[in-house]
Amino acid sequence: MAKIAPLSGFPEWLPESRLAEQAVLDTLRKTFELHGFSGIETRAVEPISQLLAKGETSKEIYLLSRLQDLDGSKAPELGLHFDLTVPLARYVLEHAGHLDFPFRRYQIQKVWRGERPQDGRFREFYQADVDVVGQDTLAFHHEIELPLVMVDALGKLPLPKITIHASNRKVAQGFYEAIGIENIEETLRIIDKLEKVGPRAVQQMLAANVGATDAQITAALSLAQIRANDASVADQVLALGYRNELLETGLDELVRLVEGANELIPGSLIANLQIARGLDYYTGSVYESVMDGHEDLGSVCSGGRYDSLVSDGKRTFPGVGLSIGVSRMLSRVISQGVIGASRKVPTVVLIAVNDENARAHAAKTAMILRRRGIAAEVSPSSAKFGKQIKYADKRGIPYVWFTTEDGEQVKDIRSGAQSTVDIADWMPPVADLYPQLVSENF
Amino acid sequence: MAKIAPLSGFPEWLPESRLAEQAVLDTLRKTFELHGFSGIETRAVEPISQLLAKGETSKEIYLLSRLQDLDGSKAPELGLHFDLTVPLARYVLEHAGHLDFPFRRYQIQKVWRGERPQDGRFREFYQADVDVVGQDTLAFHHEIELPLVMVDALGKLPLPKITIHASNRKVAQGFYEAIGIENIEETLRIIDKLEKVGPRAVQQMLAANVGATDAQITAALSLAQIRANDASVADQVLALGYRNELLETGLDELVRLVEGANELIPGSLIANLQIARGLDYYTGSVYESVMDGHEDLGSVCSGGRYDSLVSDGKRTFPGVGLSIGVSRMLSRVISQGVIGASRKVPTVVLIAVNDENARAHAAKTAMILRRRGIAAEVSPSSAKFGKQIKYADKRGIPYVWFTTEDGEQVKDIRSGAQSTVDIADWMPPVADLYPQLVSENF
Repeated sequence: MAKIAPLSGFPEWLPESRLAEQAVLDTLRKTFELHGFSGIETRAVEPISQLLAKGETSKEIYLLSRLQDLDGSKAPELGLHFDLTVPLARYVLEHAGHLDFPFRRYQIQKVWRGERPQDGRFREFYQADVDVVGQDTLAFHHEIELPLVMVDALGKLPLPKITIHASNRKVAQGFYEAIGIENIEETLRIIDKLEKVGPRAVQQMLAANVGATDAQITAALSLAQIRANDASVADQVLALGYRNELLETGLDELVRLVEGANELIPGSLIANLQIARGLDYYTGSVYESVMDGHEDLGSVCSGGRYDSLVSDGKRTFPGVGLSIGVSRMLSRVISQGVIGASRKVPTVVLIAVNDENARAHAAKTAMILRRRGIAAEVSPSSAKFGKQIKYADKRGIPYVWFTTEDGEQVKDIRSGAQSTVDIADWMPPVADLYPQLVSENF
Repeated sequence: MAKIAPLSGFPEWLPESRLAEQAVLDTLRKTFELHGFSGIETRAVEPISQLLAKGETSKEIYLLSRLQDLDGSKAPELGLHFDLTVPLARYVLEHAGHLDFPFRRYQIQKVWRGERPQDGRFREFYQADVDVVGQDTLAFHHEIELPLVMVDALGKLPLPKITIHASNRKVAQGFYEAIGIENIEETLRIIDKLEKVGPRAVQQMLAANVGATDAQITAALSLAQIRANDASVADQVLALGYRNELLETGLDELVRLVEGANELIPGSLIANLQIARGLDYYTGSVYESVMDGHEDLGSVCSGGRYDSLVSDGKRTFPGVGLSIGVSRMLSRVISQGVIGASRKVPTVVLIAVNDENARAHAAKTAMILRRRGIAAEVSPSSAKFGKQIKYADKRGIPYVWFTTEDGEQVKDIRSGAQSTVDIADWMPPVADLYPQLVSENF
């Protein structure tokens, strides 16, 4: 037997924490469905040509080879997807004839990145994405709708408050054009690093990489300072003294977003002109989000509007979507005990076994309870009752069921209370019926 | 944009069929939890040394390389798991100190096999496994319990009846020893092919590969003919005129299995002495199962008892478990229309939008309904109501909500019936609330 050791970057939960993760994934999925999104699941692999189509080699793709082809006679053709956006683009194009547009889809799957283990990053992790994809056109109002789907979903979890921070690519691009910066893509990438590297480093990079003057740098950094949770964001930007059509269109959209979002869910979204998003396919609203008290974790949910994620020459598919980095977020809050499951196992009642001849009776009891939605497990041993109770206690199973001369009895092993019950109507309290997602530290 | 084409062996569902698949996976998971099994999810990758530990190269493993390592300087070290048993063995050994034994776990995940595409086999597919793993010992009664978990789970799906066919390795081994066959592993592998290749081919292989005499072949084939759903199975085997201790122990277990299973769930299991299972780690009960009318599909759920799946030298972990080949089963029954979803999208009501100024009101209406568990979607366009109703109709959304001068109204677009409702208590019938798994053709 080869030595067993954890693989760096491939997190794995013990059953208790998996219960918490599963409850979080269920909540996300249920919320996405309440908003009318259809779940899809794409294959884990894509042709390497698709994965590299956006020139995105920084994602450290894992390539696949069949064991039988290891002699090098065949170059790898498939790789594991590193996000759920590339697969969505391919799925939409492949199945367009069978989809209804605008296509509302959610997707909760693992993705893989061959990151260096010393970076402390995950190589396998869950993402949860929602996107609306139109055919040829997509109305602006979806840019207000989509971040609120995520606010609704995340708001149902026992987590610290998560706020969406949003900007608009048209604002950034219009503003940079107005102040005379030419290399806008590189400027966006540099501004995107502001939070991480600070203003001094950004200043130097803007001067070195895009040849920005002091005045341009001052203006760009002033723009990035602006925050507002209402229409005043436009006044603040215009007060910097620049304007053009693109900037004004962008500000109009940003005001509609910040006002529209906060009208529906107050406190859900603030305009934050520092948000740039490095990827060059965004064309309108861009979103990041911060969890209170965990700012160092970076954005836990990000995305934006893209006018052409994919096109087949005849048709173009614009969209807007956001993605939650589920594993990174959960790894933090589960390991710090912020959230957890209320017990270790799904079982709510252990059926005690008087002796091995009574095992079939215990199995029948369990069967009847399960039909009524009560998770029941038969004691694996017919040892003394004390030992059977200990078995339940160790696993956090709250109730033990006994068949006695006085009839069927249930003991709540937390309180010790034991009473005679009718198998046809005994029901544990709702809070005990299934392990709950509980919040421990706040 | 590279050309888009489906990848052979990597099935992908349209949203409507994915709804059906998801409902099936949910039913399996819920049933496993009702039986007190804890869900785990293991990483998709294992060290190649683990994957090859059982000498199982026939599984056509996919190996992983980082794009950055393609120069050949680094040999692949990781591969994708090809089943959920190898990962379970590794998980149990790695986390033994944190698990409670007997460890009851279920696992529903995709697995990958680099099969040749011309075989028409899947390269990516779902398996759903349940196992009970003990530390050093594991009582026999789990060999009765585990197949019944699967019968319970599969029985809740709108599928043709699925029956477990079971035998016992001790019976086969004891019998072959009693008739004087020496290469028992190879004999098991040959008998395992009986259903596929027929008795004549098996006869030839037994003569050629294990040097069996005509008398031995006749005896082995006679054993494989035996079927019974009660204790008579032992009489039939002993009537062949051979006996030894191992055979009698095996028959005792087989009788306990067939009687115990059918006492709890009548008609659930038959003893079928043809069942051999090719894998050499089984040591007691072995299971396959057949779906009525789909016998050509082969076993949809298989497994068995193993005395030592894994060991670290000090401790041994015996277990018993079964695995459902979910994708293969669903691919058949979904594509033939045996099961499907009752509608294409989760949305139950479309909120019509009178004009764009009324969109916020429609969004608030949707929000209130969602809080009450009703999946609601706001019409993407404020076109004429006829067009908005058509949008709902095309997607199979059963209800459309209107804000009119006479108050809030809901139209059932199937019947055309429209009535004034109170947003605080309107509720669609349960059958409409969420897409149902429906059985179409039987």
